Amino acid sequence: MMRNYQRVIVAAVLACAMAFASTVAFAADHLLSWNDGPTKKAIVDFVEKVTREGAPEFVPVSERIATFDNDGTLWAEQPMYTQLAFALDRVKVLAPQHPEWKTTEPFASLLKGDVKGALPSGEKGIFEIIMATHAGMTTDEFDQIVKDWVSTAKHPQTGRLYTEMVYQPMLELLEYLRANGFKTFIVSGGGIDFMRPWTEKVYGIPPEQVVGSSIKTQYDEHGGAPVLVRLPELNFIDDKTGKPVGIQSHIGRRPIAAFGNSDGDQQMLEWTAAGTGARLALIVHHDDATREWAYDRKSPIGTLDKAWDEAVAEGWTVVSMKNDWKRIFPFDK
Amino acid sequence: MMRNYQRVIVAAVLACAMAFASTVAFAADHLLSWNDGPTKKAIVDFVEKVTREGAPEFVPVSERIATFDNDGTLWAEQPMYTQLAFALDRVKVLAPQHPEWKTTEPFASLLKGDVKGALPSGEKGIFEIIMATHAGMTTDEFDQIVKDWVSTAKHPQTGRLYTEMVYQPMLELLEYLRANGFKTFIVSGGGIDFMRPWTEKVYGIPPEQVVGSSIKTQYDEHGGAPVLVRLPELNFIDDKTGKPVGIQSHIGRRPIAAFGNSDGDQQMLEWTAAGTGARLALIVHHDDATREWAYDRKSPIGTLDKAWDEAVAEGWTVVSMKNDWKRIFPFDK
Repeated sequence: MMRNYQRVIVAAVLACAMAFASTVAFAADHLLSWNDGPTKKAIVDFVEKVTREGAPEFVPVSERIATFDNDGTLWAEQPMYTQLAFALDRVKVLAPQHPEWKTTEPFASLLKGDVKGALPSGEKGIFEIIMATHAGMTTDEFDQIVKDWVSTAKHPQTGRLYTEMVYQPMLELLEYLRANGFKTFIVSGGGIDFMRPWTEKVYGIPPEQVVGSSIKTQYDEHGGAPVLVRLPELNFIDDKTGKPVGIQSHIGRRPIAAFGNSDGDQQMLEWTAAGTGARLALIVHHDDATREWAYDRKSPIGTLDKAWDEAVAEGWTVVSMKNDWKRIFPFDK
Repeated sequence: MMRNYQRVIVAAVLACAMAFASTVAFAADHLLSWNDGPTKKAIVDFVEKVTREGAPEFVPVSERIATFDNDGTLWAEQPMYTQLAFALDRVKVLAPQHPEWKTTEPFASLLKGDVKGALPSGEKGIFEIIMATHAGMTTDEFDQIVKDWVSTAKHPQTGRLYTEMVYQPMLELLEYLRANGFKTFIVSGGGIDFMRPWTEKVYGIPPEQVVGSSIKTQYDEHGGAPVLVRLPELNFIDDKTGKPVGIQSHIGRRPIAAFGNSDGDQQMLEWTAAGTGARLALIVHHDDATREWAYDRKSPIGTLDKAWDEAVAEGWTVVSMKNDWKRIFPFDK
């Protein structure tokens, strides 16, 4: 029979052992939704190489920066970017305050339910819709609007919350990298303030590790209280050549691993791959028409053309969603 | 005599106890250079309040954001901002490549050693000096230039490296906050890329937690390799009303504690103090002419006038360097 002090010691040792075990977590525990094969091996080899102390390609924890595109890399982007679905919903909500929209494009077509009629005006039309729905309120107000929307809005084809339309293998990859001392960042063409209200809960990525496109804000006072007002003026486009610029601005050092799915990510992957030492540049290829969508070179959303050619030429890792992933979404069986 | 397995258990328990002890670190261990009194008490009371689980003002770790001004708050800013000393040194180094500077102000006066003659052109002159010395190279090149400079340049009055001219009590405060789960950020009017090469080593603040003023950069290729080129074009001024804007852009949530020393920090302190729950807004007052410098309302560098009035009116914490700090610099006895 154990004496009391022995019980205490055993309990303390068990607690400590469990604490250690939870921090020493390796690939086998993490990448459960990845099929074995060259893609998973490329990821695990890279992580083991840069985390092995004394190895020639060892990277100190502070430099283990990994950047992830969002639309099409961490969550679905078909049949339209989620942020555009948000903007269209907001146009409907705000319409009663804007009687002039009934006769002004692109709003008139939208309000008649004719999205295709509204968007041929292309970038200009989208710009107007974004500014009409994303500016004119305080940052705190916009944060709440986004939180309310993502907690209720459903994907038109699956009926799932948009925040459920995330890729299970990528969630595991984020966790795996963090368990190995990486700091994970989002670097997206999407709006920075559209992502921040939910990325911590959904991806474990806090607001300060989200980089994205932005409009300008202005410090002001409302009824004696300081506020930041969102202005209808572009500040920064975090896409294509903007991604390395956004990385430099927000992170201030070059990632050693970067993850994307489209030509919008090409320069981020180039910038990452061009650093010295071990590097991981990875592209998610949407080639699973059954479980998700299949699209690449000719798709207007998530075009993967030049970045794919460069991936092949440079030996970047290309994920086949069809062959490399056991599951796509967390709700898949 | 202990048996072997007992030895192992005791060793394990000791190791664990030490690991716990090192994370459970309180004020007594940290704020050694702070005199006891109402200022130190205000800091410790705030930290204990927001970290005590179950307390009404408890703040989860992810929201424990603390922002620090740099010039005059973490390191000395007299007799001139360190970044200006850097720029003046760079003008001398670059002069042989710019024969036209011999006859163009503000460079001509500078090269004759007449700083006061160069700077009456004021903001315009400083702007030209900054652009001539901070732009036109890649981000990697500039990083190296700054690293080389801070490793050799000496303060004109103390003969110390500029990175030694940091405030020992503030280093302890940074550590104390981090030991209590805070994420510490710099939010400075100084150049973001002038600070990032050394803040991790000097303050324990990594590049991605530095917010500052910036010029634009452009993604380009030099000899087949991707580079980011620094352009002679302003991007953002992180001062006064710009500080809450910079915080929103880089951090994406409101700090619960903010630390400054001048009118340039007033809006950051307002923005921080206006949040709900416990808040700490603190101003360092330079009132020690013997051990450092004494200056406030009338000083052109580090003007402390309106922010001081607001501090008194709003009950913010004001540090007297003379009375609250046992030591100023790490090299002080």
